[in-house]
Amino acid sequence: MSRVRVPLSGLRAGLRELEVDEARYVRSVLRLREGDTFIVFDPEQVVQAEARVTSTPRGGVRCEVGEVTRAGRVPDVPAWLLLGVCKGDRFEWALREATALGVTDIVPTLCARSASSGTRADASRMGRWRKILVQGARQSGRGDVPTLHEVRGLREAVASVPGSLVRVCLWEGAAVSAGPWLRAGASGVALLVGPEGGIEVDEAGVAEASGFALGSLGPMILRTETAVIAALGAWQMGRERPSS
Amino acid sequence: MSRVRVPLSGLRAGLRELEVDEARYVRSVLRLREGDTFIVFDPEQVVQAEARVTSTPRGGVRCEVGEVTRAGRVPDVPAWLLLGVCKGDRFEWALREATALGVTDIVPTLCARSASSGTRADASRMGRWRKILVQGARQSGRGDVPTLHEVRGLREAVASVPGSLVRVCLWEGAAVSAGPWLRAGASGVALLVGPEGGIEVDEAGVAEASGFALGSLGPMILRTETAVIAALGAWQMGRERPSS
Repeated sequence: MSRVRVPLSGLRAGLRELEVDEARYVRSVLRLREGDTFIVFDPEQVVQAEARVTSTPRGGVRCEVGEVTRAGRVPDVPAWLLLGVCKGDRFEWALREATALGVTDIVPTLCARSASSGTRADASRMGRWRKILVQGARQSGRGDVPTLHEVRGLREAVASVPGSLVRVCLWEGAAVSAGPWLRAGASGVALLVGPEGGIEVDEAGVAEASGFALGSLGPMILRTETAVIAALGAWQMGRERPSS
Repeated sequence: MSRVRVPLSGLRAGLRELEVDEARYVRSVLRLREGDTFIVFDPEQVVQAEARVTSTPRGGVRCEVGEVTRAGRVPDVPAWLLLGVCKGDRFEWALREATALGVTDIVPTLCARSASSGTRADASRMGRWRKILVQGARQSGRGDVPTLHEVRGLREAVASVPGSLVRVCLWEGAAVSAGPWLRAGASGVALLVGPEGGIEVDEAGVAEASGFALGSLGPMILRTETAVIAALGAWQMGRERPSS
């Protein structure tokens, strides 16, 4: 009973020859051989199936995909993450772990401290970010991927959040804890987290004017990716009622 | 008003010539020059001061340290982290971010899936881990560092936790959410987080027999370092009462 998961687009039951990249992953990384079984999933269709390696001709992998079923582990409430675009590693780390923590929508947001990151070609960047989200789903056992929205400026980003969500801007300058707001967002939340260097005072003002509560994650200064994970962890755990 | 912070041991007011490593950090990484001010802190003594570069002779740095005061940002309740020893990067990432999130005590814990990590020389490893903790304090603005306990086997580790703390073992096999337990630990908590690959069933049993509640962080599988950050974020945010 292997928990190894391989993302496959256009998943359906029957015989299938894997693409070059997929085959390399199955053979060289997972080291699967003829007869080994693994899980295949299609995060776009939100389905999964068991597959078995039937042969490995000349570096390729042929497999038999079993019955395709609805993927089980998908988020049940909306959780938007408006994330300040910053240096590659940190941003991508945050994307991947936010996927594991059940975010449903991601809006890459250009903030004052996003530096020059905004000038790179968006198409290739979006493609790379989509791969990171699939990676996050594969590692965490999640059956779908978050919707990746286009890169937006801060004003546009805060205005794009559905009206029903509780809005929280994580800001180290906030006078109060984000805790109560994260709990209040149990049925739907939108989090704004700045890039490395944080959110500037007037940006916090823009968010506040759009209905975002300004809340702090505590007295210490946190890295962007740590703030994302800590806030989502608090939100997830706050959704569960105490068992009294 | 620079927020740049430099750790210095044996901190006291007056003129001081920095050690080679410290001087390199101040000149090459922070790019401070004569007349620039910065914060120096001593996490062992839990004190800090303002310092000013007075001269930079031949690659060195001389500075004047001002009045030494008690450091402000230190955790106010005990939070123990029993962390499964695993591959360097992940373990060290977790140590550094746990420092930023207010952990007071760290027990590196040898678990079944800690692999061969247990066999390396402990002395050099402990020295390296201490540096990571100071780094976490420097980055986050924390005035002290967590106490780093000796590496322990799981049975020893769970038995070493003070009796007053609420004990939570984060385990993906748990039937209930860790949320209520993390909130119950508002005045003191001990978290057990397994290494990469997780905690085995009989290890969860050992923890449970020592008074650890078994709780899950949700349906998805999380990396060790993500589990640590998410759980500590939930614990920190659960400490704040709703402002009703």
